[in-house]
Amino acid sequence: MTNNKPRLLTGDTPTGKLHLGHWVGSVENRVAMQNDYDCYFLIANMHAFTTRATRFAEIRESVLDIALDYLGAGIDPQKSTMFVQSDIPAISELTFFFSMLIPFSRVMRNPTIKDEIRDKGLGDNYPFGFLLYPVGQIADILAFQPEVVPVGEDQIPHLEMTREAARRFNQIYCAVDSHINDSDYVKAGGLFPIPQAIMGRTKRLIGTTGPDDHGNLLKMSKSLNNAILLSDDPDSIKKKVMGMYTDPNRLKATDKGQVENNPLWVFHETFNADKTWVAEAEERYRNGSIGDVECKKQLIDVLVEIIEPMRQRRLQYANDMEQVLQILRNGAERANAVAEKTLKQAKDAMAQLY
Amino acid sequence: MTNNKPRLLTGDTPTGKLHLGHWVGSVENRVAMQNDYDCYFLIANMHAFTTRATRFAEIRESVLDIALDYLGAGIDPQKSTMFVQSDIPAISELTFFFSMLIPFSRVMRNPTIKDEIRDKGLGDNYPFGFLLYPVGQIADILAFQPEVVPVGEDQIPHLEMTREAARRFNQIYCAVDSHINDSDYVKAGGLFPIPQAIMGRTKRLIGTTGPDDHGNLLKMSKSLNNAILLSDDPDSIKKKVMGMYTDPNRLKATDKGQVENNPLWVFHETFNADKTWVAEAEERYRNGSIGDVECKKQLIDVLVEIIEPMRQRRLQYANDMEQVLQILRNGAERANAVAEKTLKQAKDAMAQLY
Repeated sequence: MTNNKPRLLTGDTPTGKLHLGHWVGSVENRVAMQNDYDCYFLIANMHAFTTRATRFAEIRESVLDIALDYLGAGIDPQKSTMFVQSDIPAISELTFFFSMLIPFSRVMRNPTIKDEIRDKGLGDNYPFGFLLYPVGQIADILAFQPEVVPVGEDQIPHLEMTREAARRFNQIYCAVDSHINDSDYVKAGGLFPIPQAIMGRTKRLIGTTGPDDHGNLLKMSKSLNNAILLSDDPDSIKKKVMGMYTDPNRLKATDKGQVENNPLWVFHETFNADKTWVAEAEERYRNGSIGDVECKKQLIDVLVEIIEPMRQRRLQYANDMEQVLQILRNGAERANAVAEKTLKQAKDAMAQLY
Repeated sequence: MTNNKPRLLTGDTPTGKLHLGHWVGSVENRVAMQNDYDCYFLIANMHAFTTRATRFAEIRESVLDIALDYLGAGIDPQKSTMFVQSDIPAISELTFFFSMLIPFSRVMRNPTIKDEIRDKGLGDNYPFGFLLYPVGQIADILAFQPEVVPVGEDQIPHLEMTREAARRFNQIYCAVDSHINDSDYVKAGGLFPIPQAIMGRTKRLIGTTGPDDHGNLLKMSKSLNNAILLSDDPDSIKKKVMGMYTDPNRLKATDKGQVENNPLWVFHETFNADKTWVAEAEERYRNGSIGDVECKKQLIDVLVEIIEPMRQRRLQYANDMEQVLQILRNGAERANAVAEKTLKQAKDAMAQLY
């Protein structure tokens, strides 16, 4: 599998099945990039322990769900390497070494960590591993020395820390000058390229339930129960779309239907390829001259057409879980070949081969 | 090397050569316990990066120094397993999983960590790895499922955290009841025994320079320049003892020589086997009827007799560093056999074998 394509690394923490937010945020990109990049897709089961260490059977189930979601979505195990994080020892080993290069205060300043502590109401009550996980993510990424990392918006601060760690390692252990351009580190003898983020076409897809009571747009998330899954069957999609939030004011004579931040129209704009119909229908919606039901039926057709082939492919794999496990094991073998090589180079640079 | 002896794990962070404080604090015990325990001695090179990530060549040198110190002190590589931490991937992997079982606030409450932050003047300016290292120590220890852990006094809080992690793992992943006695965890199906500390006969040997300006007794430490090394030659020992602090008041007519907390007498009490001479000489010292020089000469003889055989043995090994490296590699192989088995059992318990 070694080749001259630029390397790509990304992944997901297994905390539930993948949904349309994952699709437009990253997975769609991954499927499209498989031919042009040497792709590594990591299922970060160790990170799932940060918030559910006692629910370990659930983590296992989620790992297998994500693997099925990948395969269903069109990740081709012949082209790409998908694997489970805990099967790659070098990731944990590199985590230890990178933890020495990142100031503790820097980890605590990470806005994503702050948000998570607030959103999950953790207070002071979180495991040490919760802070270790962004440091672990540095190793997840750099173990594969990738040029590009497709990420969701909330992962950008983690990737920035990864880029800092890569620079610092290259400066300390490979004697690369700190004034060099990011793109020149490897050329100058550095072990790690400074990886670039690739964002999906939709940074943050809203959920089916619309804004919360305070008017905040809620991101699609399985735990908020506002997600359409890549594994939903047509009936589930139909029910979710028909029950979807739309503008409650739109049929009042005094007010027009609102399109902006309305999930019905956000979804049409995001997923409906018939841009002409969408533009016209939005206009009619604003005028109050098109009914919800008609627009929702259109959306159901659009989403079923995207999701149903994924679901069918997923079902085939789900009927042979031994094959799925074998795909993960083969992936681990290929991933280990790369990560072990990186680790050996890193230890050599740090004078720690004995 | 597998046998039915109870297992013992301990080690040192390679930040300089071993000294007499290490000897009476732990190394002497280790040498004595080699026949009755299945011993694992870890050189914690990754932990050395917490405070000297940029001085990596020095860390390598210290690793080899510690290995030589062990061999010189009488650790027999045929009986015991000595190895370098970074050669054992399972330690890093288990660190990740144990980090999920220890609350962050618990790590920060660790008094040894607080002391180190204060003593080293770190303020907020320390790497994340500085906090990771006590968590890593949990894995250092538990990877070997030892019954006993010889430790210095300052490591007791770390061992207490290790015992908490072992209990918690056994409770969550092996369904052991939390009301059980520490000694019964394995019998009840737990993976990890709750390890016991073994303290050396001297918990905290003072250094040659006596108390500091504030009257605080300073522990023997290479960085305080008050240490007699296990690798010191007779001339160095002589110089260090002759220049040793003694009670500055002892020849004043108004005051008597003080024995308590006087390094000269602490060392005689600790190392001189002729207890009768020590008791009589202390009495005469209190009376002002014996000179410093006579007592120091006695101490030189005592220390040279202890250290010189170690130094000679050390020198022989130092003449063949390839052999020393081979001892560490053989040790890593044996240590990995144990640690990999533990890791596999742990992953199985957590449902994370794929």
